[in-house]
Amino acid sequence: MRNDLNALLEGLHNRDARSIARAISLVENDHEAAEVILTSLDQQNVRSSQVLGITGSPGVGKSTLTSSLVRHLRSQGKRVGIVAVDPSSSITGGALLGDRVRMMGHALDSDVVVRSMATRGRLGGLCAAAGAAVRIMAASGCSPVIIETVGVGQSEMDIIRLADLTLMVLAPGLGDEIQAMKAGILEVADLLVVNKTDCVGAETLSMDLEAALRGRKNACQSRVFKTVATTGQGIDELAIAIDELDAICRSSGEHDRRRHSSLELEIVDWAVELLKPRLLAELQETAYPAEPRQTARKLLARLCPLMIDT
Amino acid sequence: MRNDLNALLEGLHNRDARSIARAISLVENDHEAAEVILTSLDQQNVRSSQVLGITGSPGVGKSTLTSSLVRHLRSQGKRVGIVAVDPSSSITGGALLGDRVRMMGHALDSDVVVRSMATRGRLGGLCAAAGAAVRIMAASGCSPVIIETVGVGQSEMDIIRLADLTLMVLAPGLGDEIQAMKAGILEVADLLVVNKTDCVGAETLSMDLEAALRGRKNACQSRVFKTVATTGQGIDELAIAIDELDAICRSSGEHDRRRHSSLELEIVDWAVELLKPRLLAELQETAYPAEPRQTARKLLARLCPLMIDT
Repeated sequence: MRNDLNALLEGLHNRDARSIARAISLVENDHEAAEVILTSLDQQNVRSSQVLGITGSPGVGKSTLTSSLVRHLRSQGKRVGIVAVDPSSSITGGALLGDRVRMMGHALDSDVVVRSMATRGRLGGLCAAAGAAVRIMAASGCSPVIIETVGVGQSEMDIIRLADLTLMVLAPGLGDEIQAMKAGILEVADLLVVNKTDCVGAETLSMDLEAALRGRKNACQSRVFKTVATTGQGIDELAIAIDELDAICRSSGEHDRRRHSSLELEIVDWAVELLKPRLLAELQETAYPAEPRQTARKLLARLCPLMIDT
Repeated sequence: MRNDLNALLEGLHNRDARSIARAISLVENDHEAAEVILTSLDQQNVRSSQVLGITGSPGVGKSTLTSSLVRHLRSQGKRVGIVAVDPSSSITGGALLGDRVRMMGHALDSDVVVRSMATRGRLGGLCAAAGAAVRIMAASGCSPVIIETVGVGQSEMDIIRLADLTLMVLAPGLGDEIQAMKAGILEVADLLVVNKTDCVGAETLSMDLEAALRGRKNACQSRVFKTVATTGQGIDELAIAIDELDAICRSSGEHDRRRHSSLELEIVDWAVELLKPRLLAELQETAYPAEPRQTARKLLARLCPLMIDT
């Protein structure tokens, strides 16, 4: 075991793709080696890496945009990581959507590290696992690491808090409900992208969004970026704006604030992961537990007397 | 304060709508009165109530179907609760989608209790809050209590585990991605509903789903229910099937198993809610916390030495 672990750490150091994948799996399953793996990562790389969130409703072309952006970043010689957090099956444990297939264009490129992460079948732990995957990729020299997620749902929104910067992707013709979410979108997005600008309705959507963005302080934050991900149109400009905003955030201290808040999020999520099995084991003793809040408080009062007022 | 609380408990006992709303708010914010409120609920009603999950992607007509089902249930003299868990703004704290407006048809009916619950801006706690809302409504004589949620995202899927029975709503013409999720859908749904059967593609979708359902043991679980929620078509049949399956689950012991697992889920979620403020307070001491998993373990080892191996 100890030898296996040394080989794995050696593989991580050498940016070996299989070692990276295995390290992420071990940490995701909270294997006993998890902490050794995580504490031996190259912290210099972790700190300097750019972590980019890409979010948007199903069908806006997130994965195609990601793929197109990756092509651009590769042409600049950058090593890229992708953590794809998708609605997926608790049975297969993997992503069901066909989108992932499109990333296959980069499948033979050892400087594109891709990881899909299942969201179903867990209670919490997703931020912990995704954060760890980001850190493992970043330590292996990936920058940016892109976190791609469907922007619906509580955990998925939390995931976005792991990113230094977040791109929100929209597309025309996806119905009223997406339009109705615009107010919410503006709260979390650093950069807005209207994809499929070759489709009907793109101009109206862009203008609506630009109106809503008026008054934002950074030029790239008050702009709506227009792309056609399938052809690569607009991707260069978008990539420039990302680096520009990243530089602004790093010099203003915003970058550090976000990293700090993302660490807090991960720490709390790990704490839950570590406590959950103990709580569930305690509950096994109870044939039919009483009122849940009271049961939870009594359990904690017994197990963590320093933390809970009794 | 004590007098206020007594008045509130009295109001709950009398099924007063404002008291129910206020009790849910207090519990959702984990007010100091939360435990008193929750432990004083009529447990008989909580146990006997039917808890129904309705889930499906945006645009399938979930809210219209819920509204139509509520109309049917009201015609049978049933008192109905609705907990609507929606993607929503962390700023408004309420639901942004216009769907909620449709429930206004029941706004003046004191036997229809509606509660919207925001999902953004929380880390966990959603199952605890939604579970408590369900229990408060059930205690006040609502049966069924309907939990309506967008079926995308980890927390939203967890929410569905609070239900005794889950209806998955689909509609034709919503694109490949929804089709691709069918495998996942079949894992969580007890009853499948194809809504908007007056639209193109409904027949194909129904046939595809029926093929996928072959081999399910209960007749109502291997059937696809066809509805046009806007006109009420198919709702009577659906309501009969729900009660039929509910009776089967109650007599087979499946109902008790699900309630037990939902209690476990809520207890763990409450435990997290109770611990989180303490963990975050501890982290305030740290200028820049170290590796998250290690930090979490060390915090817990100090605060809950009985729970964590050091």
